[in-house]
Amino acid sequence: MAMVLRRLAGAPSPAAAALLLRPALTRPISSGFREERDTFGPIQVPNDKLWGAQTQRSLQNFDIGGERERMPVPIVRAFGVLKKCAAKVNMEYGLDPKIGKAIMQAAQEVAEGQLDDHFPLVIWQTGSGTQSNMNANEVIANRAAEILGHKRGGKFVHPNDHVNRSQSSNDTFPTVMHIAAATEINSRFVPSLQQLHKSLDSKSVEFQDIIKIGRTHTQDATPLTLGQEFSGYATQVKYGIDRIVCTLTRMYQLAQGGTAVGTGLNTKKGFDVKIAAAVAEETGLPFVTAENKFEALAAHDAFVESSGAVNTISASLMKIANDIRLLGSGPRCGLGELILPENEPGSSIMPGKVNPTQCEALTMVCAQVMGNHVGVTVGGSNGHFELNVFKPMIAAALLRSLRLLGDASVSFEKNCVRGIQANHKRISQLLHEKIGYDNAAAVAKKAHKEGTTLKEAALSLGVLTEPEFHELVVPEKMIGPSD
Amino acid sequence: MAMVLRRLAGAPSPAAAALLLRPALTRPISSGFREERDTFGPIQVPNDKLWGAQTQRSLQNFDIGGERERMPVPIVRAFGVLKKCAAKVNMEYGLDPKIGKAIMQAAQEVAEGQLDDHFPLVIWQTGSGTQSNMNANEVIANRAAEILGHKRGGKFVHPNDHVNRSQSSNDTFPTVMHIAAATEINSRFVPSLQQLHKSLDSKSVEFQDIIKIGRTHTQDATPLTLGQEFSGYATQVKYGIDRIVCTLTRMYQLAQGGTAVGTGLNTKKGFDVKIAAAVAEETGLPFVTAENKFEALAAHDAFVESSGAVNTISASLMKIANDIRLLGSGPRCGLGELILPENEPGSSIMPGKVNPTQCEALTMVCAQVMGNHVGVTVGGSNGHFELNVFKPMIAAALLRSLRLLGDASVSFEKNCVRGIQANHKRISQLLHEKIGYDNAAAVAKKAHKEGTTLKEAALSLGVLTEPEFHELVVPEKMIGPSD
Amino acid sequence: MAMVLRRLAGAPSPAAAALLLRPALTRPISSGFREERDTFGPIQVPNDKLWGAQTQRSLQNFDIGGERERMPVPIVRAFGVLKKCAAKVNMEYGLDPKIGKAIMQAAQEVAEGQLDDHFPLVIWQTGSGTQSNMNANEVIANRAAEILGHKRGGKFVHPNDHVNRSQSSNDTFPTVMHIAAATEINSRFVPSLQQLHKSLDSKSVEFQDIIKIGRTHTQDATPLTLGQEFSGYATQVKYGIDRIVCTLTRMYQLAQGGTAVGTGLNTKKGFDVKIAAAVAEETGLPFVTAENKFEALAAHDAFVESSGAVNTISASLMKIANDIRLLGSGPRCGLGELILPENEPGSSIMPGKVNPTQCEALTMVCAQVMGNHVGVTVGGSNGHFELNVFKPMIAAALLRSLRLLGDASVSFEKNCVRGIQANHKRISQLLHEKIGYDNAAAVAKKAHKEGTTLKEAALSLGVLTEPEFHELVVPEKMIGPSD
Amino acid sequence: MAMVLRRLAGAPSPAAAALLLRPALTRPISSGFREERDTFGPIQVPNDKLWGAQTQRSLQNFDIGGERERMPVPIVRAFGVLKKCAAKVNMEYGLDPKIGKAIMQAAQEVAEGQLDDHFPLVIWQTGSGTQSNMNANEVIANRAAEILGHKRGGKFVHPNDHVNRSQSSNDTFPTVMHIAAATEINSRFVPSLQQLHKSLDSKSVEFQDIIKIGRTHTQDATPLTLGQEFSGYATQVKYGIDRIVCTLTRMYQLAQGGTAVGTGLNTKKGFDVKIAAAVAEETGLPFVTAENKFEALAAHDAFVESSGAVNTISASLMKIANDIRLLGSGPRCGLGELILPENEPGSSIMPGKVNPTQCEALTMVCAQVMGNHVGVTVGGSNGHFELNVFKPMIAAALLRSLRLLGDASVSFEKNCVRGIQANHKRISQLLHEKIGYDNAAAVAKKAHKEGTTLKEAALSLGVLTEPEFHELVVPEKMIGPSD
Repeated sequence: MAMVLRRLAGAPSPAAAALLLRPALTRPISSGFREERDTFGPIQVPNDKLWGAQTQRSLQNFDIGGERERMPVPIVRAFGVLKKCAAKVNMEYGLDPKIGKAIMQAAQEVAEGQLDDHFPLVIWQTGSGTQSNMNANEVIANRAAEILGHKRGGKFVHPNDHVNRSQSSNDTFPTVMHIAAATEINSRFVPSLQQLHKSLDSKSVEFQDIIKIGRTHTQDATPLTLGQEFSGYATQVKYGIDRIVCTLTRMYQLAQGGTAVGTGLNTKKGFDVKIAAAVAEETGLPFVTAENKFEALAAHDAFVESSGAVNTISASLMKIANDIRLLGSGPRCGLGELILPENEPGSSIMPGKVNPTQCEALTMVCAQVMGNHVGVTVGGSNGHFELNVFKPMIAAALLRSLRLLGDASVSFEKNCVRGIQANHKRISQLLHEKIGYDNAAAVAKKAHKEGTTLKEAALSLGVLTEPEFHELVVPEKMIGPSD
Repeated sequence: MAMVLRRLAGAPSPAAAALLLRPALTRPISSGFREERDTFGPIQVPNDKLWGAQTQRSLQNFDIGGERERMPVPIVRAFGVLKKCAAKVNMEYGLDPKIGKAIMQAAQEVAEGQLDDHFPLVIWQTGSGTQSNMNANEVIANRAAEILGHKRGGKFVHPNDHVNRSQSSNDTFPTVMHIAAATEINSRFVPSLQQLHKSLDSKSVEFQDIIKIGRTHTQDATPLTLGQEFSGYATQVKYGIDRIVCTLTRMYQLAQGGTAVGTGLNTKKGFDVKIAAAVAEETGLPFVTAENKFEALAAHDAFVESSGAVNTISASLMKIANDIRLLGSGPRCGLGELILPENEPGSSIMPGKVNPTQCEALTMVCAQVMGNHVGVTVGGSNGHFELNVFKPMIAAALLRSLRLLGDASVSFEKNCVRGIQANHKRISQLLHEKIGYDNAAAVAKKAHKEGTTLKEAALSLGVLTEPEFHELVVPEKMIGPSD
Repeated sequence: MAMVLRRLAGAPSPAAAALLLRPALTRPISSGFREERDTFGPIQVPNDKLWGAQTQRSLQNFDIGGERERMPVPIVRAFGVLKKCAAKVNMEYGLDPKIGKAIMQAAQEVAEGQLDDHFPLVIWQTGSGTQSNMNANEVIANRAAEILGHKRGGKFVHPNDHVNRSQSSNDTFPTVMHIAAATEINSRFVPSLQQLHKSLDSKSVEFQDIIKIGRTHTQDATPLTLGQEFSGYATQVKYGIDRIVCTLTRMYQLAQGGTAVGTGLNTKKGFDVKIAAAVAEETGLPFVTAENKFEALAAHDAFVESSGAVNTISASLMKIANDIRLLGSGPRCGLGELILPENEPGSSIMPGKVNPTQCEALTMVCAQVMGNHVGVTVGGSNGHFELNVFKPMIAAALLRSLRLLGDASVSFEKNCVRGIQANHKRISQLLHEKIGYDNAAAVAKKAHKEGTTLKEAALSLGVLTEPEFHELVVPEKMIGPSD
Repeated sequence: MAMVLRRLAGAPSPAAAALLLRPALTRPISSGFREERDTFGPIQVPNDKLWGAQTQRSLQNFDIGGERERMPVPIVRAFGVLKKCAAKVNMEYGLDPKIGKAIMQAAQEVAEGQLDDHFPLVIWQTGSGTQSNMNANEVIANRAAEILGHKRGGKFVHPNDHVNRSQSSNDTFPTVMHIAAATEINSRFVPSLQQLHKSLDSKSVEFQDIIKIGRTHTQDATPLTLGQEFSGYATQVKYGIDRIVCTLTRMYQLAQGGTAVGTGLNTKKGFDVKIAAAVAEETGLPFVTAENKFEALAAHDAFVESSGAVNTISASLMKIANDIRLLGSGPRCGLGELILPENEPGSSIMPGKVNPTQCEALTMVCAQVMGNHVGVTVGGSNGHFELNVFKPMIAAALLRSLRLLGDASVSFEKNCVRGIQANHKRISQLLHEKIGYDNAAAVAKKAHKEGTTLKEAALSLGVLTEPEFHELVVPEKMIGPSD
């Protein structure tokens, strides 16, 4: 008990901590815990939690990083999906339907996030994710038992024999990794990028008539339109979506059915295909059973690959956000071509200063994503024999990258890109020594209004003679190839 | 409403945000929210929170990653330390002592972690950490006002004029970065490594008489003692401590006093030196004012450097943990020279299997640390002009690496290294074809008991003649240079 | 002249160095140089070299890294391809056919590698690769002039007006980057991986009847066949090929026609499409003109993406090579399941020792490839405005990774994988305590010979009763799911 | 012979290639080779090369990357130093002085670079560097034999028994790694950084009176002097030097004396200390024998650590070079505060354009250095048991980083920093709305001439009244704390 208390004191649950700090305010401790049991023997578990002995043991053995280091929620939810599907398929292979249905219901609750608080384990546990698999098995077994009118810890529904039936941690964990990542990519990450792409693309159209100085080597170069500049950004994001989608083929392969080493020992023939189909139906994503289960357990190349696509996207977004903050630099002593939205007070010492904070948040995320990618690569390269045991780290790092880069893209779109305005006056000023600001404005206005070329407009306005037009910097000529 | 409040305490859920936009749908504002105000105007803030307008605005503008992405706690605590010291020094420069003392008391509560829940902002905000600085200013101002009998939001104690006096986010945030990192290194990280070093060193002594096969290129090589092998590990960790300590010289330099761009505008002469002294006194660590404030704001090379040391340590620990799991591989079909402690059931499909889970947790952490290091490097290299705006990311990544690697080292020590046993029988078997297991055992036992060399023991036992000893593999001869 | 000599003394060219060390052996120095000229004025160039003023100036201004750091040969060859195609298309747009044809001939010589020695510039020059573009222009112009009977340096064929016509460094260099990378991927890298895949796949078939212990967490697990284990490796390489091929879509897009900032200023309409078609015809690869030239100049996401695929492959090969050296560890004190080919003496101190040197070379390459990938990512993320100026570094790093990983794969295949033998005796020994080595051998032999299952063979041989078979570890049952 | 020819055809040596392409021009092939021999049997070696059988075999077995991938020259030279010292110490332990002295002479030639052409092996060989050690042994043995009047290949001086006496590849290669890195750091890298530091520091003084706008978040902020801005850069470089020097303590530890596994088998007691002393004397650097030889062979943490310092320096230089190119951006449409030297024509399409090419070369190098650091980290973390077998990669990557970053720093200093001029007019313009350019110029001039403060000068010139001075932006007040 002393050890349990020490552990709980160190453990992240605020509830448990409160319990220990003010025991007099709570129910007697004797009623606060129940005994759970595994092959190692009995262990005390908080009564209000559904987890069992192996989860509790992991809590005590892996006191690493605290509560913020918990296994990512998408993994927990994916366990719900998988265990529901496993129960469904197992019923086809003889699992008692009463138990099977209760498991399905309990697993559904996990999938919906109703039981998140019962998944306390951190990423930094056994490298196969065994303890999180057992956490899922234990929670679902206890919850299913309750659904059937039995009490927690009684193993009326058994974590191993029923919930984990025909499965091994070694195939379930990679399976939930793939379910979680594919789901996040489809439901959050790609839509976030699409939102950003659409916004950049709109700006590209909005700015299509604004001729501005180009810059190469950070030096003045020949002109282009602001719309052309934004079209480059939009294209980067569009290709980014293509890139991540390209990697999904291999992400849709599920390890389930490989069991402990890839051979499928302890499953039935066809189990692998059926469970992939069930997951596909449950998620609406085209999951299939992995063509080679040995690869699916021993390597996580699919994660390294997808992380590589995310890394590429982070390089793209770093470039875009950098450009936007530099083009928006000023107001008086910078480039000042863009006016960025003001979302908050900028400086505690210089009230009124407006900073490109969305660019900053996004580029910070990009730097972390690049780092996570190296972590995933190192983890992915270090498998041994039949099992890669960097699974939770690999999963957590990619999922974090997806979440952060997706969220930051949306925040950047909503709070920055959408509201960007061209500083027409400044943009023209910077082309001033060529043909003059007012003239440029008149030319552009006329050309736009009359649907003529800028050259025609310039000549008809008498701003320049044709030879002058060709001798000097001629925007119309300079923003595209000649006929 | 309860959910709304809980949610707001955490993160900017769109649903909750929507709710706020339509206050008529909620309980009367007067009891659930209060109005706070900044240069942008008024904004509703939950009544039970001490933060103010700028914090609330950041919550709404940076919906990135959710609650787990909050600014690391050591940064929050370091803000407490810094603001306390600032108030103390500001009183020397004319701050009203009544207000100054209330600020000190409130800041002390922050430093002690009593107000952690009032720091809801995520890492992914403005890259100068301005919003977290304002979060600290607002919380401390409101709390100090309460201490003095005034109400929240009334600005009796002013976040900028009083709490942030003589400071800028641009110098406070790098200052708290250094305070947090130096404190974590000294109070948690180095002690964790010392614990691991001591344990490895003890094993090195414990195993000093166990002669075993050496392996180079993973192939059989000449013998050494198991103690010698562990002495290599212990030395790696010892040097690791030296490495991180080496970098502290530059980590002890504080930016405070540089204010917005490094010039110290808006501070008084001597403020920088005094505040560094105050922080040094408060923390017991030898902080000094940065020799060059421009470097201290515009670059975070000190973090890149320390992260490099942590990266080196992660390479060391990856090697050690890999060796230990391979030396402990088996039980029958591996190397089997080490017996690792059994801490939990190993496999959901193979009950009784014992896995090197602590090695796995540690090596996963190492991979993430290597990744974080790249993130820190990318962030550190991307400053512009007078300010690096990757501060929160850099800080969070290094602090996470320190925490994870420290905790994992302790877990590895406590749950693995400490309990490692040599598998004497297996170790001897592997040398079997040379001089035989029983003989080796007898020789080693005799040598240890009588304090003689192994050679003397072998000859006196008649296990080998001297020529045989020199012809065959002679452990005593092979584990060191000859005379 | 003194400056020229100092430069040459410092410069890497062996020819030049020889010249300076033994001037008496050569023609008088006064006749050893000619004057070339650019907008900066005249400069001395070695007479035996075809390059001109801008190349010479770069040599003097970028004394970084020495001869080994020269621009990769595939870039030089790709310049030959591009300049040939440009001349061909330019003739359609009015380039004097006499000059055009001479340029085509000279460019062909560059493409064939006959003029490699005339490309002395290092990677570390201007970030747009301008100087290498000018190097190509100058060499081809001088060579074309010679073909037409004119002398070097006379500019009868002009580097800018003729050879670089309708082009800018800013579009030529990214174009040659794509030509070089796509060519290397198709002609060397993918075939190398295919060779490795085929060999691993053959081994998978060869070893399909060898039942062995599986290992998860480096611990003994349930059995699988050695063929299954190798099928995992083969699958990893097969997917690796898919991965890199997936990225080619974007690599086949050529920037040519974008000129300085992406607008196509100074080209004619249709030039971009025609030149991509010409390059496609010349190389036999499906190059097309880039859909968005602004993206094509300002970002190198296509390189970051392909490098990500190569990084994934390096993670795969690291895993495979690690497994093979560990499975081949021993001979007596390791796992010893594989017998690796002996290619060289292993140890200067332990003659007779055989080391897995091919695994070592390959894994070292993998580590460098992972590093290069980070370099490419950092370079790729740091473009500014209309131009990314990390082009030569990005190109060189990816090309080096492709070359090294391709070559190392072939070396590994040829000198290791191809000759791997299963150590049948050892493999069976490790399963010994289950059913015995001789019995296992008899069972396996009988099953293979008669085409029956192992179970049938074991029962018919009377090695085990069926209950024993099911009670004990049953290989046949354990290497796949049950019926 | 056919194999030899095939090999040579594929091999990188230009001499050999020439031989094969134009056999008629050379001596008959039969006289072009001699037979060398190792434990694997005889093998043909080119007659004009000093290397022996093991080198030749490595050439054939590791056809990876071609000539540019040769082992770095500093490693070859360090082998010269080490083998000379080994012979010297071995004579104290009984090596025949005639042979010992010849070895010393031959080794000296290697150390001086006279025999570089006889070291053809690539980095990508056995991971212990055994083949390069044997290359050194063979070359020195053959050369020493010649010095003593014997012929090549005759083994009058024996590569193993004499040149490699008391050594193993496993301790010699890490020893030469440390010698090479420590020498490069001291003789090239640190002096290069010092040159850059001195130049930046001079600029800081030169620009100390130039008041300019500060920029944070890329936005206009409070003023500072250009000298203050450069003082930040100078400080970064100064600390960079401190950082790399800090790591030398561990780099000065030599593995020599550990032999195969760290025990020192086959050496004599005291050999390790003596040889470290000899190397120290030979190089003038404070090398010592490694405190723990097991660590020294099995890990290369010292390289990971030093690479971490170099990585930090690359982050610093990336920041500095980025700032300088942005501050020098323009000429009309950028920030334009700095005028960078013109070293070459800038653009093939825009003659007259001047680009910050030195910044570009340097930042490209920084990106590659960051990549190499990851490679070193991955290699450093992947040792197994008594030996890390990523030695040549680790060594080559760090040495390349040192060379490139050192050379690029010198190039940047010489061709850029040294010639940077402040664009006084532009700098004042950007402060124009405050106090006006002419007035600012007059104030600054007067203050500088008379040694007064700017404020005094401004008031005495009547440019501003004191209240105006305090109301408006007051440079004097704004570039430092107040009294």
